[in-house]
Amino acid sequence: MRRTRIGIAQINPTVGDLRANTDKILHSMAKAKQRSVDLLTFPELAITGYPPEVLSSKPQFLKQTQESLRQIIEQSWGIAVVVGFVDGPDDSYDAAAVIEDTRLVGVYHKISLANYGELREDRYFRSGSECPIFHIRDIDMSVTIGGDIWLQEEPAMPQAHAKAEVLVNIAATPYHAADGYSTERKLADRAANGTVIVAYNNLVGGQDELVFEGGSLVIDAEGAIVARGKHFEEDLVIAQLGSEALTGHTTPTTSPLPTRLMEKPHRIAGVYEALVLGTKDYVRKNGFNKVVIGLSGGIDSSLVATVAVDALGARNVVGVSMPSRYSSPASKSDAEMLAENLGIKLKVIPIEKAFSSYLEMLADSFMNTEPNAAEENIQARIRGNILFALSNKFGWLVLACSNRSETATGYTTLYGDMAGGFIPLKDVPKTMVYQLATHRNVQAGKEVIPSSVLSREPSAELRPAHKDTDTLPPYELLDPILRAYVEDHLPIDDIVAMGFHREVVTQVAHLVDSSEYKRRQAAPGIRITPGDYCQGRRLPITNRFRE
Amino acid sequence: MRRTRIGIAQINPTVGDLRANTDKILHSMAKAKQRSVDLLTFPELAITGYPPEVLSSKPQFLKQTQESLRQIIEQSWGIAVVVGFVDGPDDSYDAAAVIEDTRLVGVYHKISLANYGELREDRYFRSGSECPIFHIRDIDMSVTIGGDIWLQEEPAMPQAHAKAEVLVNIAATPYHAADGYSTERKLADRAANGTVIVAYNNLVGGQDELVFEGGSLVIDAEGAIVARGKHFEEDLVIAQLGSEALTGHTTPTTSPLPTRLMEKPHRIAGVYEALVLGTKDYVRKNGFNKVVIGLSGGIDSSLVATVAVDALGARNVVGVSMPSRYSSPASKSDAEMLAENLGIKLKVIPIEKAFSSYLEMLADSFMNTEPNAAEENIQARIRGNILFALSNKFGWLVLACSNRSETATGYTTLYGDMAGGFIPLKDVPKTMVYQLATHRNVQAGKEVIPSSVLSREPSAELRPAHKDTDTLPPYELLDPILRAYVEDHLPIDDIVAMGFHREVVTQVAHLVDSSEYKRRQAAPGIRITPGDYCQGRRLPITNRFRE
Repeated sequence: MRRTRIGIAQINPTVGDLRANTDKILHSMAKAKQRSVDLLTFPELAITGYPPEVLSSKPQFLKQTQESLRQIIEQSWGIAVVVGFVDGPDDSYDAAAVIEDTRLVGVYHKISLANYGELREDRYFRSGSECPIFHIRDIDMSVTIGGDIWLQEEPAMPQAHAKAEVLVNIAATPYHAADGYSTERKLADRAANGTVIVAYNNLVGGQDELVFEGGSLVIDAEGAIVARGKHFEEDLVIAQLGSEALTGHTTPTTSPLPTRLMEKPHRIAGVYEALVLGTKDYVRKNGFNKVVIGLSGGIDSSLVATVAVDALGARNVVGVSMPSRYSSPASKSDAEMLAENLGIKLKVIPIEKAFSSYLEMLADSFMNTEPNAAEENIQARIRGNILFALSNKFGWLVLACSNRSETATGYTTLYGDMAGGFIPLKDVPKTMVYQLATHRNVQAGKEVIPSSVLSREPSAELRPAHKDTDTLPPYELLDPILRAYVEDHLPIDDIVAMGFHREVVTQVAHLVDSSEYKRRQAAPGIRITPGDYCQGRRLPITNRFRE
Repeated sequence: MRRTRIGIAQINPTVGDLRANTDKILHSMAKAKQRSVDLLTFPELAITGYPPEVLSSKPQFLKQTQESLRQIIEQSWGIAVVVGFVDGPDDSYDAAAVIEDTRLVGVYHKISLANYGELREDRYFRSGSECPIFHIRDIDMSVTIGGDIWLQEEPAMPQAHAKAEVLVNIAATPYHAADGYSTERKLADRAANGTVIVAYNNLVGGQDELVFEGGSLVIDAEGAIVARGKHFEEDLVIAQLGSEALTGHTTPTTSPLPTRLMEKPHRIAGVYEALVLGTKDYVRKNGFNKVVIGLSGGIDSSLVATVAVDALGARNVVGVSMPSRYSSPASKSDAEMLAENLGIKLKVIPIEKAFSSYLEMLADSFMNTEPNAAEENIQARIRGNILFALSNKFGWLVLACSNRSETATGYTTLYGDMAGGFIPLKDVPKTMVYQLATHRNVQAGKEVIPSSVLSREPSAELRPAHKDTDTLPPYELLDPILRAYVEDHLPIDDIVAMGFHREVVTQVAHLVDSSEYKRRQAAPGIRITPGDYCQGRRLPITNRFRE
């Protein structure tokens, strides 16, 4: 292998926007050529966006994808390219085109389709079976997509890899907060065990509930990471493949783009960036400019507003304070202080007028009944109605402020605080909401989220002296129980054995099991764990089983 | 084979209610023994209910299932039984226990797991691989579950079937309106081609979005149907297996339960019964007694109320008329007439008070804007809030009245008319809503749904002179286009070639593609087509592709 420059174009395409994605790819190719890149890779399904789901069975979509590929091939003089696309038209494949100097050298079809969490690639794609060696730019290269790189059983695979000098892997790996360095370590082992260079191009961007973090890698044949792409941003990583080894390399071009070991953000910082990118891409890619958020003065809405400002800029975020007869002066002033700290517009719309009209309208029906969740939820739903009225009038997307601890236990009002087009904290437990808020304040070196918000006892303020702990165990107890029951799906007995009171564990389990109906009606939000409740395995709504 | 009586206990279990399901099974066994049944079958997963989804990975659930099975075995003296259960505990299988005279003869594991539409059996179960012949009660019998009966490739399968005199198939086949007699014909072919008796036990009941219609079958070795179970009801079908042939048989017992060819209801009647059963089981199995429905005087809410009364009885249905400043006198009086015809309670709660408070509260924000969807949707959401307040106060389940034509095009208000715990007409196109209403009136021999409801032009009545056709093409055009685009997923060109205007087809396609976000937040409802949009293949929300 002669000295070759490999470029990893870690791009953020939009599902279905074939024109814009192709332009982005062509632009990266031009930039890479300027920097003397010999071989340039793009992420999995870069032309179409990932995951295209049912689009990949539409003939017109496949035809336009082919047309995009044709343009990319046409403009590939002077460079070799590996780019992800959907191959059709009879069967659809999650595919990689290998291109060199205006010639399509070959097409690889993904073998190991991803079918975990929300991913159901087997519904949309046929599986490939061949793994050829491509000889381009004097390199013997094998190309794999996503999990294919781990395949050991497929007969073609280890054989091909044994011959290859470089394993190109193009991927769209959903971000999971708990992953840490495990993907990196596995890829490094893969390189060292095969004495082969690994070039991993991971998608970046948000798509509905998924976030892809980028962090692409070039790993030398001894398993050392020599280059790492940015996290949660587009990037063009360039590395020099030597005759035997591989060295990180600062390109001596006019526009400086050094190959470098970008630092991987620590866990809480990573989650925060995932929330920002996921929110930004959901809003922008769906054609919205502005968002509107109900600011209660509580921690959840304060964090959502902060994430939104970091994603979209202060002028694109509108806060609405909607105090009721039960709102405390402290929470009202905290909402104001937060808006001021963030520099966002704050509308104040007290809900008393609407609330008292409902009570009058329902006076006959509610005669001789005790106040209960009915009166509480009316208030939450008035707020949902106001936010959606503003959304309908001005085209702002509503961000809802529910968190995972609330949706897991059903401690949230359908059409009330759950009302929204997107729920940034949907998969974030309450205790992590506090960590994220603290992280953001520390990062800013000042109080962005007022400290009184962080210290006040959580309350929905829907009745006098209302506290979350009236209904739920304290979050420091609740969250680990939820994790054990929902994520690790442990039996109640095992959770009790971890040191929790049986009564509390049973209460939490019953809350989870009986609130599935609410979660089914929740808006999409950002996933930071591998799947939905029980890793893509579904809890029936109609379900009389109780442990 | 000596003369043997086969019984098919077509039961309606509840997911997770192991105690009640086991009692139901034991009760059927006792009844069958009284009627000298030799071999009694139960539907797929009869002990646990179908589909148990994630429950089947809970150790406690598997343990209690084993305990239920043990009781069934213990009480099986004098009879042979085939009963569906989840076999564990290390791996979970969709299984059939073959039992004879207090002895477990063997266990069959489902081979061909169902993975279409909403079904994802591969996420919960391992696949079996063996298909033994069971010799019980002097019969050589093979047992299969669901789609296993069609397997040709599995080596064990044709071999086993070739030796069998009787193929017992236990199933949970989701109801699809378009199926007609196709399952029956396929099973009859299966019998005739193998010269073998087929005994098909199909589940009956509703579970979340699925309805199972029963209609179990006994088919002789020439392919003639000799007995058919009731549709949409529990049943015990008994047939006599002769030495060579098989004859339908009226049992000479004191409680008459003749084997008979129950008539399969015609298509619209079948859909109506599916809606009634699906609604009834969702309400009852989730522990509700009463439902509340917003009655606008329109056709959708009129049909939902009628279905609810047939499902739950008039005293368990509460109608709420919530007229606004835009409601016509005709629609108000139609809601009253319907309630009177059905004999249900009608509350009248005008929404003007709340509507004008919202307009006042939003006056500043809306200053200098033109009225648009914002003001319209406020009204729909006030109604949603009132219905949920009644639900929260009195424990009534809210039935929402959206239909499939509306949710497909997004012509429905999130948290407004979409607000509900269950949507009976979720999968019913508007043109079929009319057919169902007419069917119900004809069946009753009188006007249950007032004829003025059937003849008035569809309108949401959210602004002056509001008509559905302001936004949508007429339903007679819309529904076939939706069917072609959503169910048959045809490209726009092909739909135009069917004779529709390109402009209309394109408009409809864009409405469908851009309203996915609303459908994701919809409550569950009854499926009468094989899957969700695109047969379980999902449309991304974030999606810039437009044909």
